[in-house]
Amino acid sequence: MNFNIRPATKVDCKDIIRMIMELAVYEKMPDQVKISCEELERDGFNQNPFFGCLVAEVPEEDGFATVGYALYFYIYSTWKGRSMHLEDLYVMPQFRGFGIGKSLLSAVAQVAKEKQCARLQLSVLDWNTPSRDFYAAKGAQDLTVKEGWHLIRFDGQSLDNLANETQKN
Amino acid sequence: MNFNIRPATKVDCKDIIRMIMELAVYEKMPDQVKISCEELERDGFNQNPFFGCLVAEVPEEDGFATVGYALYFYIYSTWKGRSMHLEDLYVMPQFRGFGIGKSLLSAVAQVAKEKQCARLQLSVLDWNTPSRDFYAAKGAQDLTVKEGWHLIRFDGQSLDNLANETQKN
Repeated sequence: MNFNIRPATKVDCKDIIRMIMELAVYEKMPDQVKISCEELERDGFNQNPFFGCLVAEVPEEDGFATVGYALYFYIYSTWKGRSMHLEDLYVMPQFRGFGIGKSLLSAVAQVAKEKQCARLQLSVLDWNTPSRDFYAAKGAQDLTVKEGWHLIRFDGQSLDNLANETQKN
Repeated sequence: MNFNIRPATKVDCKDIIRMIMELAVYEKMPDQVKISCEELERDGFNQNPFFGCLVAEVPEEDGFATVGYALYFYIYSTWKGRSMHLEDLYVMPQFRGFGIGKSLLSAVAQVAKEKQCARLQLSVLDWNTPSRDFYAAKGAQDLTVKEGWHLIRFDGQSLDNLANETQKN
């Protein structure tokens, strides 16, 4: 199958939002998606964007259809310096098995190397065996299994409470 | 004990590097620290810094001693938008038990709220019970336990291999 990987532009946000929701349904947490197309346009396509995004497209009768995306941003390791986090990697089910996901992942890794990132990290759900096997086959380490890292989150009331604590000095 | 929390400046980098190493020793992975004081100065204290940092200081005879730090950066959730990651939170052992860690954490949460972050996330090692209990007592959720998220990493050869894969289009 012919396909093309390219950086997303603002006009892709409608397709990206659609696929963010499809991925959340697959991950069994569609209720958690609160983001809007406007926020995505504002946050990713300005002079200091909060994230970068690549899209995969396939030719159709009168142009191209967007069938996958990879959304990433820069993080920082106090051990290794600048690194990259891959927030989402998604290919629509009917377009899987053609190497589109692999190409998206490789293209993200190329950006990471160009930007001198020492690491490319991501999170995956334990029951998502196809994804875990895919990343393992590519040489990734599962740091939760290997070193025992847990992901911890404050949000909503717990984040408000933290911010409102009186400093004891 | 009197202490003060303030944003770090470039001249704090020597103290921060010392404490990064102390934290890595505590986490039993001191060999992984490859960062230098120069890199930290360059990456954190320019017009578009890769991270922010707060330090905790206590008065001593002729000034202040830096005894803790919190290093954070912005991340992006495709479900919730702008968020914050707390990379390191550290207080020197002899200064623990006075609320310095809590104040650093609260100050980071205040920055997160000011910057409209929906979430504050961090990673912790499974055997680090004091830290896990500390965050749980503050209302954090352990997403690895609750939802099954694993942290995955490509680096070194596996990242090079990914970037060098030929795109199949």
